[in-house]
This record gives sequence, structure tokens and C-alpha cells, in this order.
Amino acid sequence: MLGMGVVGSGVTAALAHKSDFLTKMVGRPVTVNGILVRDLSKPRSADLPTDLLTTDVDAILSDPYIDIVVEVMGGQDPALDYIIKAISLGKHIVTANKEVMARHGPDILNMARKNGVQVLFEASVAGGTPIIAPLLRDLTANDVISIHAIINGTTNYILTRMAQQYVDFETALEEAQNLGYAEADPTNDLEGIDAAYKLAVLSTLAFRARVKDTDVHREGITRLTARDFRYADELGYAIKLMAIASHHEDAVQARVHPAMVPNDSMIGNVDGVLNAVEVETDMAGRVLFHGPGAGSEPTASAVIADVIEVARNIVGDVIPPPPVILADDILVRPMAELETKYYIRLNVADRSGVLAQIATVFGKHRISLASVIQKESDDVPNGAELVLMTHQANEANIKRALEQLEELPVVNDVVNMLRVEE
Amino acid sequence: MLGMGVVGSGVTAALAHKSDFLTKMVGRPVTVNGILVRDLSKPRSADLPTDLLTTDVDAILSDPYIDIVVEVMGGQDPALDYIIKAISLGKHIVTANKEVMARHGPDILNMARKNGVQVLFEASVAGGTPIIAPLLRDLTANDVISIHAIINGTTNYILTRMAQQYVDFETALEEAQNLGYAEADPTNDLEGIDAAYKLAVLSTLAFRARVKDTDVHREGITRLTARDFRYADELGYAIKLMAIASHHEDAVQARVHPAMVPNDSMIGNVDGVLNAVEVETDMAGRVLFHGPGAGSEPTASAVIADVIEVARNIVGDVIPPPPVILADDILVRPMAELETKYYIRLNVADRSGVLAQIATVFGKHRISLASVIQKESDDVPNGAELVLMTHQANEANIKRALEQLEELPVVNDVVNMLRVEE
Repeated sequence: MLGMGVVGSGVTAALAHKSDFLTKMVGRPVTVNGILVRDLSKPRSADLPTDLLTTDVDAILSDPYIDIVVEVMGGQDPALDYIIKAISLGKHIVTANKEVMARHGPDILNMARKNGVQVLFEASVAGGTPIIAPLLRDLTANDVISIHAIINGTTNYILTRMAQQYVDFETALEEAQNLGYAEADPTNDLEGIDAAYKLAVLSTLAFRARVKDTDVHREGITRLTARDFRYADELGYAIKLMAIASHHEDAVQARVHPAMVPNDSMIGNVDGVLNAVEVETDMAGRVLFHGPGAGSEPTASAVIADVIEVARNIVGDVIPPPPVILADDILVRPMAELETKYYIRLNVADRSGVLAQIATVFGKHRISLASVIQKESDDVPNGAELVLMTHQANEANIKRALEQLEELPVVNDVVNMLRVEE
Repeated sequence: MLGMGVVGSGVTAALAHKSDFLTKMVGRPVTVNGILVRDLSKPRSADLPTDLLTTDVDAILSDPYIDIVVEVMGGQDPALDYIIKAISLGKHIVTANKEVMARHGPDILNMARKNGVQVLFEASVAGGTPIIAPLLRDLTANDVISIHAIINGTTNYILTRMAQQYVDFETALEEAQNLGYAEADPTNDLEGIDAAYKLAVLSTLAFRARVKDTDVHREGITRLTARDFRYADELGYAIKLMAIASHHEDAVQARVHPAMVPNDSMIGNVDGVLNAVEVETDMAGRVLFHGPGAGSEPTASAVIADVIEVARNIVGDVIPPPPVILADDILVRPMAELETKYYIRLNVADRSGVLAQIATVFGKHRISLASVIQKESDDVPNGAELVLMTHQANEANIKRALEQLEELPVVNDVVNMLRVEE
């Protein structure tokens, strides 16, 4: 084992607790032979056999009695180097590392194939909820059309709290931090970086072509306010940090941003720290996977499932055929080409003729409005708040329209824009 | 291929349509070499190469160029005999047959292991929605505590229609038949027989012990009326044909019956012909799989995924380790021991003291009431309708209480009893 944080502790505890069961499943005992840690003097759980701890990765990688290296350190460096070295030494890999798999997954799988070892990474996306193996195996007869996913539990917890009681963003974040759902520095979660890694991994498997984290358009959740949730509710929507990828005419479009989804849809009902991945396919229709996306035990569930699989193959003297990724890269469709519906919130002057001016701007950019809500502003004297929902429109046109609106004297502020995904 | 009905046609069409893709995935072409049908003269789709059709099963089973037998005939006879013969002749099996797998799954898997062949059956439960492989592989580190599933699309369509517009059962059934969702003789669906087969398959894999369809307690949906749906809605519940299995202290309890589930739960939002399986585990928490449960293309998606897996293993010269089923049988906990909440609907005389008499009967059987709704009856002059929700209670006590209520002069009729699953 490389790493002994939240996931590592869960894996070690479960391996110890379930050792009889694992022996039955695998046909031989599964034992931990070494654990790489950064600091030997750090206090550890009483159950942990301290003689297994080492700060020397080579003591583990060069141990001929070790068959499987479980990487649960997280982050690219030095995990990537360790994984590569382990593969070159003929070790099978089980990893929970979304960052490494998002950036280097296809290279690692390629290298594994050449070295006759397995690399399994079910825990890298959606924790205890199966999604990697289902994409690689169960849905493999399908062309995947799109993925709609909620794959960051931290932000989903925050957004759920904002929706339930209209608490403001800072309060919800603080709550998440107190509950251990958000880190002290929550940037990776809030800005969609974590979700973008995971979406890159899912897209690569779903579309069988390399999609990198840098191919994913990213927007975070920090500009959302309680007011957006009130309007969303009124309009019949939930606001979620959506990770969406679609495949059309040999190009992929992948994006992570807050979006409105219908309140009565399955994905709109994914609440708290839970995750869900909906896969739209040509044959199987829409299939949804829902469950815990993080946490010590759920993630350990995925890691140990992978360990059992590799161990059974070792006992059976089997190297199963590796995952198929057909294309080494793929055309990335720019966000400017996106076509969807939009929610737009404006602070405007409260006088006659304002709506006509605004509607004219939208009309010029071929954006047709589906509904308009006008409310008196609580903040601005003689101001009003306008909430617009568009029909299907083009992202570039929306962006240009919003720029022009910013310049209208009657528009005080373009407060927010959210894409609406139905 | 054995069989050329709805599923068989879907499989053949997709194999033809996707042959280039399949060749890429597998590394060799995948071709249909023979198709067993009952009647050669029956009109077939124009795409179907009629020279592949045969009424002689041995022409297929004894063909040395055939590696995989795809069984999509359905029903136990003669499918079971054909599967057994094919395995003994060294053929791999892909089957969609829930009845055969529910009754003989462990024996078939055992025989396959001895003969060094694979038997895959993802299509036997929930059509295009992955659940067999996830239970066998992705969740394998877990002890499964319970399964809560909606695994019959026909009844879920009928119940969804009854809930949406309070249409009566006969109307909803007729609609389902017109849409091709229900057969001319819908008994297997309506009485929960189909769902019981599927629950037996899922339970066997989840609990790693043989659970037969005859171990499953069954009640159908025919006694539900529009009025039950009105009350359910009022109380915040949906009514679904639930397939529930739980594992506790080395015993299993498996049951298929209509039940109330919370309107705001994921499972309560599974509508139309869709299926969902929620698996409650010790490590991964609750994981839910949702998607199409039947139909030509979704089922073909599962069949072809299995074909690709077997074919890739053949090309890679690999026989993967077989599924693990640890116990050959398991104690079945009788329904009398069930503890859950209950909804009870009574027609009673509309006069004072009635509720006191009824409450006394419940009290005597240690059943405590959570809520009571009383309405004037539309049907019976001077009659009233009483809808009772109990707290957690024992099934045997409920049955005894209902028998005593039947005998009270003030009770005209015990109209319905539904279990409430939260």
C-alpha cells in the first residue's frame, strides 16, 4: 500500500476485518506486506501493524512477495512515478487516483498491457458507486451519447444545503468543512477541478478516446447565491454542479459547471454528498448509477473489489484482456458551439421600456425567451430583478448578448447565467 | 443463437449493425453461425439471413465452429436442456433466461466451472441496466444487507399510470397491453412471478447463497385501486411492486409485493417501464442502479456485452475465475417474522365508538397506530372509510389483528393492507 490517509485506513481496516471472507473469495489469504507513509512517527490507529510502515518506496516496489500495489496517496507527484515503476517491475496496480488517471490513464494502461499486468481504478470516480467497470464491461456494446454526472460530493452537499433552506454559500461551506466534507482549502472541489479529473476519466472510457482534464471546460459554484436557488425552485429546477460530456460526429464536448436540472428528474434528486452518473447510450437508453462518492469505507469498497479481482486472476493464473481505448486523441468541441437553454438573472432599472430594450438585444442574437419573471429588487432602490429563461440557444450568442446587456444603461448588472439541462 | 423473438431480433440486428466495432473490440469478427427457431416458415425481418435458421438444435450445439451459445428463448423447457447440453459440449453460454437462472443458476455455474466454460447472464435481470456484473464484481468486498428493487417494467408502468391520473387497474393494464408493455396473458407480471425469478437471481449473487424463486413470498398488484393511490399520495408515498430481499443472522427473507415507498426517495421516483435495484451494503452504503428493464435493444445491450466479454476471453485464451457462491442453501425467514410499517384501509360503520373498538384490537396485538384518516364512504350509505398507518409492527400480529377486525360487526370490510418500506 502506498499511502495511509482516509482511504488507506479504510482499506487496511477492511482487509483485516474481512480476512476470512477474502480468503474464501480469492482462494488464498490476502495480506498487506508493506505500507508507504511520509512520517513514521505520526500517531496511527492501534490496529495498524507498525512494522509494516516504511518511508522507503523501493522496499515495497522491489519486494518479490508483493503482487499488487495499492496506490491511495492521491495527487500526481510522486504517485505517478511510483505507479510507473511498479508496473515496470511487474506489479499489478489498484489505484484511487483520479488526477493520475485523468492525465496519464491511457499511457498507464498501455504500459500495463505491455508488462502483462492489470491496472484497476474503480475507486478513482464516484467512490463506492460502480461506474468504471460498468463502462468498460456492462455497457460496452453501446455507443455512449452523453454522460450527465454529479461527481463531487463536497459541492453537492453545499448546493443541497443552499437549496433546502436557502442558506448562503459561506454558511454551507463552513458546515461542510465542520462535517469533514470539505477540506480547509476547498479550491479543488469548489472550482470543479476534482470533477473535471473524474469527467476526463469517464469520458475516455465512455467514448474510447483520450479525453484529458484540460479538455474539460470548468466553472465553479462560488458565484451562486441563495436567490438563484429561490428562482430555480420557483421554476421547477434544482441547481447542481454538473459534469457533462457528449460525443457527436467524432468530437467530444466536456464541461463542469453549475446547471439547472429538473426537480423531478433522477439527477435532480441526488442530494447531500451522494454522487450519480447517468450514461445515455444508443441501445440501453439512459442508465443511472447512484451512491456514495467518497468517504473511507465506500472508497475502500471499490479498492478492495479491485484487489479481489486482481488476486483471483493471480490465483487463476489469468491476465484478462485489457480495456480498449481506440483513439489516442479526439476533437474537442469548443464551448462556443454549445446549444442549450439558459437562465439569466439581471438587475435592471425599474421603469417602462426596459424589458423591450433587453428583449431586443436577445432578438438580435437569435435568442428566444421562454419565460420572464420580474421582481422588485431588495437591494437596489428603483431597481428590479429580471429572471429570464431562454429556449434552446447558442452559447456564443448568449455570451455576446450578455456583453451587450452589460453596456445598456438600464442594466445595472448581469448577476448570473446558468445553463439549463433537461 | 437459440430463439428469435424480441430479444433475439435485437441481438441479431445489433451484431450485424455493429460488426466493425465488434471486430475492433474483440480482435476478431463475431458472426452468427446458426439460429434455432420453432417455425422456419414464419415471416422474418428482411435483414435476417434465412440460411442460418434451423429447427434442429443439435445442428448448432454440435457445430465445432460455434464457441458461444446465446440463449434467448425464455422459459425453462427446453432452454435448460439446451444450456446443459451446450456446456457439456464445451460451449460458452450467454443467456437472458431469468427462469432458468432462478431455478438452476448455481448448478449451471457449477457445471460451467467443471467444463471450463463461462456462463454470463447480465440480461436475465433489469435488461439493459447493469446489475449482475456489479454484484459479482464491483460490490464484492461488501456484505449485502438488503436489496430493494423495481424489476418488472409492466407492473411499474401500470402503477405509474394509476398514480399519475388515478386511472383504474383495468384501464392501465389495457393501455400497457396496447403499448406492448404487457402480454395478452399478463399473469407472470401481475402476480409477481417474473419479479420473483429476478429477485432469486439477485439474492443468490448478493448473499452468495442459493435463493430459489420458491423461497420468495409473492403478492400481485391486482387488488390495488385508484383510491389506494389517492391515500398514498396524501400520505407522501408512491405504490410500487417492490422486490425486497434482506440478509440477517444467516437467514434470508425475500418478498415481492406492492408496497408504499416515500415519494421523495430515489426508488419512489422510478417511473414507467424503468427498473431500479438498490443494494444496501456494509461498506459502500446504498448503491442504486436505474435504467430500462426490458425491450429489444436494452436487453440486446446486455447480451452483446456478455458476448464481447466471452469473445475477448476466447481470443485472449483466458478462462476467468468463476463467480463465488459460498452456500448451497440458506435459511428462509418466514413472512410471519417480518417487521415493518403497515397501511390498512377499512370500510366501517359511521358511528361513534367505532374507532375505539378498532384501536382496541390493534392494541391487543401490540400494534401502535401512527396516523388515522377517516373519510365518508362514497359507496356505502352510513359507511366511512378508515385509513390507518401503523408504527413498526410484526406481520403475524397484523394478520391476526386483521382477522379479528373482519369479525367486528362495525367493520364492513378490510379493503387493503400494504407494507410501508422507508
